[in-house]
Amino acid sequence: MNYSMILYLLGWILNFEAIFLTVPAVTALVYSEKEGFSFLIVIGICLLLGLAITFRKPKRKSIYAREGFVIVALSWITLSIFGALPLYFSGTASYIDALFEIVSGITTTGATIFSDVESLPKCVLMWRSFTHWIGGMGVLVFIMAFLPLSGAQNMNLMRAESPGPSVTKLVPRVKNTALVLYAMYFGLTVLMFVFLVAGGNPIFDSINMSFATAGTGGFGIKNNSLAGYSDYTQIVVTVFMILFGVNFSFYFLLITRKFRDAFRISEVRAYLLIILAAVFLITMNIGDSFATLGEAVKHITFTVASIITTTGFMTVDFNLWPELSRTIIVLLIFVGACAGSTGGGMKISRFIILFKSITKEIRMLIHPNQVRKLEMDGRTIEHSVIRTTNVYLVSYMIIFVVSLLLISFDNHSLVTNFTAIATTINNVGPGLDQVGPVSNFGFFSDTSKLILIFDMLAGRLEIFPMLLLFSPVTWKK
Amino acid sequence: MNYSMILYLLGWILNFEAIFLTVPAVTALVYSEKEGFSFLIVIGICLLLGLAITFRKPKRKSIYAREGFVIVALSWITLSIFGALPLYFSGTASYIDALFEIVSGITTTGATIFSDVESLPKCVLMWRSFTHWIGGMGVLVFIMAFLPLSGAQNMNLMRAESPGPSVTKLVPRVKNTALVLYAMYFGLTVLMFVFLVAGGNPIFDSINMSFATAGTGGFGIKNNSLAGYSDYTQIVVTVFMILFGVNFSFYFLLITRKFRDAFRISEVRAYLLIILAAVFLITMNIGDSFATLGEAVKHITFTVASIITTTGFMTVDFNLWPELSRTIIVLLIFVGACAGSTGGGMKISRFIILFKSITKEIRMLIHPNQVRKLEMDGRTIEHSVIRTTNVYLVSYMIIFVVSLLLISFDNHSLVTNFTAIATTINNVGPGLDQVGPVSNFGFFSDTSKLILIFDMLAGRLEIFPMLLLFSPVTWKK
Repeated sequence: MNYSMILYLLGWILNFEAIFLTVPAVTALVYSEKEGFSFLIVIGICLLLGLAITFRKPKRKSIYAREGFVIVALSWITLSIFGALPLYFSGTASYIDALFEIVSGITTTGATIFSDVESLPKCVLMWRSFTHWIGGMGVLVFIMAFLPLSGAQNMNLMRAESPGPSVTKLVPRVKNTALVLYAMYFGLTVLMFVFLVAGGNPIFDSINMSFATAGTGGFGIKNNSLAGYSDYTQIVVTVFMILFGVNFSFYFLLITRKFRDAFRISEVRAYLLIILAAVFLITMNIGDSFATLGEAVKHITFTVASIITTTGFMTVDFNLWPELSRTIIVLLIFVGACAGSTGGGMKISRFIILFKSITKEIRMLIHPNQVRKLEMDGRTIEHSVIRTTNVYLVSYMIIFVVSLLLISFDNHSLVTNFTAIATTINNVGPGLDQVGPVSNFGFFSDTSKLILIFDMLAGRLEIFPMLLLFSPVTWKK
Repeated sequence: MNYSMILYLLGWILNFEAIFLTVPAVTALVYSEKEGFSFLIVIGICLLLGLAITFRKPKRKSIYAREGFVIVALSWITLSIFGALPLYFSGTASYIDALFEIVSGITTTGATIFSDVESLPKCVLMWRSFTHWIGGMGVLVFIMAFLPLSGAQNMNLMRAESPGPSVTKLVPRVKNTALVLYAMYFGLTVLMFVFLVAGGNPIFDSINMSFATAGTGGFGIKNNSLAGYSDYTQIVVTVFMILFGVNFSFYFLLITRKFRDAFRISEVRAYLLIILAAVFLITMNIGDSFATLGEAVKHITFTVASIITTTGFMTVDFNLWPELSRTIIVLLIFVGACAGSTGGGMKISRFIILFKSITKEIRMLIHPNQVRKLEMDGRTIEHSVIRTTNVYLVSYMIIFVVSLLLISFDNHSLVTNFTAIATTINNVGPGLDQVGPVSNFGFFSDTSKLILIFDMLAGRLEIFPMLLLFSPVTWKK
């Protein structure tokens, strides 16, 4: 294990954290909020530590697979630990609560422990939203664009951080892939901001909503999330939530004018199909409880988009819906968005792979001597991808079950516990019952909060980095 | 597809059904119940059809893998369809309800649609319990012992019917393996009966309890299941539930004096360990709600044994327990008993295989060039077994999710729906909320009952036979 390289990159994480923290610090300045000092103090701490560590480059620069996983896991943990400090120093929350909030932010979960977000200082609101934006595309992806690492080093980092069953390099060099991804991400975010401002929304609200939507995070700056905004705003957010849940390869193919390839991506098609099907079923189920069909479709599409993209904004309290609709919501929490998007969940391409492998195995039960290859979008699905997908699924289930057992010590209802784990491990935000869209996570015990923090990180990093971090094999010589 | 051979074996199923039905018919005679006539009529129908079909042996006798799956699926469906007729003819239940009850019996689920079983005629009670006993060890296994089929034919049937990730032949010939299994099954059932009668239980009660325990079924003949029986009886049932959840290879090794090999079976050890851990946790959680610790341990061990072996008897209403204990119950519903036992669920050996494959894959993430073989009890786990286990898991989840969606149209609570599917697909019996241990399944709509019937069969036959039956690939030339 190359400890010095791990430490070195963590140093860079601290430097970048200092840069990130200038955003809320400037916000505090603009609104002359005294909580800005807490941000300044933490900027100081991060720079002091970060610059001391990154002062000298390590001699041995090798990053293999296991270093990749460890660096990614520790980077996210470091970002969260230091990112929580301003909330703690300013007296906004206890340290565990602050940590929960920032992990929820950076993992783009959007589950909050605050019951009254409108009373929070604007700099804290901005920091919460901005963590979504940072976490959405990934931190290492961002840093890779700036640090002089080799292609193999970058690949091992990217493989560990990027969502989905396999990594697609958009352009031959990993570093340039990172740049292209961030460029598209930035562009789409700005576009959304423009649309929001054009609709008459205040600049502050528009920035926050854009950050929280782009990262598919879901922290609201109003107590009733997006329920109070205009139809126009709700529709703009709906559209952009769906857009940010799309595999970014799609946009790259559009930009490079490979329209045919873009629309052939089966994951994107399945994604849109699932959204349509869910909207249809829920409208059938509860459509007549709204004033008009248009109103129904607007709210239902918003909710479905918000859940499947794992954003977690809300305009209506879906916890009060009948069981069929509630069940669909629970299932959508697990499905998640496309791989290579900013969304969380288990990812649609994983389900496609699993479905395809079942069909193949059933064929093989009947014709044991037929050997078939699995294909997706014209490319063979590597055997290792299928295996890793299966292992992902099983590890995911183990973490889910153990977490469920542990938080049930708090003795909240089974539906509360189940959906609390589901919504955190899939980085969605709201669940049902006591963690429904109009509730918050403040009532959990500190132990349960720590478990949910672990689940949010495990979910965002897609299990393996967090699993490897705590596995003795990783640390053996 | 060898249709004539499929039909021929289904004919034999009907002949055997006629023989099975003599048990309730004789019961009706003993207690001079008029419902006995319904059983006689169905015996007549089965014999008429069965003998007509089996009159001539088909020329082409080949049974390949796909015929094996289809025969197993259709055999169980046939047994259920005809086995439900006496309840319908005697006016005991509507046909859908009768079908639900008999499928629940033969799949050893034990979920009932009757709210007052004490008002049922004794012949119906006996038929319910006896279907547990028939279904426990498997019907085809039984028939194989009598029909002159070849080893390969038998193997393809056994592979499709027997529970667990792979088939272990106890003795070289499949047919003799079937005989040995049924001999041990019969012996253990008689032993239990002797213990129950020795404890002063009526003969009728003892027969019913023995059948229902041996098959890990769980139909009670009292409205409060086993709550009204003596401590002695409850303890005897606890012990035998645990015994019937053990892989029968264990007993075979004991009989053949391979004690060391017997106690080395990791599945059996894991099984006992899980029982101990669950009893310990639940006792910690709710122990002080009982009069004495002894009382607590008795009831909790009974409940844990009843759930993990998928029997489903009850002495206390665990639906009222706090959430930690309820969550443990839900998890035990999924775990199930050992492969090669009469118990249902996902089977402990499957979990062992999945755990082992995760550990291996994590090692491979870190050391990509190391190739390792997975071992269990000193034998290599074939790659095909791992793959089939993964496919089982995914198919299981798909059936689970689709069923959950479909029954949620009834608009019962999420916990009711979730545990209703869980308890039927795992062949346990009781769930939580409205399908808790003191409730029944009568309130579901007919559509939902049909879905639960499918799930019970799919669960007992471990997914593939039912999946293949409805898959177009199976029926293609």
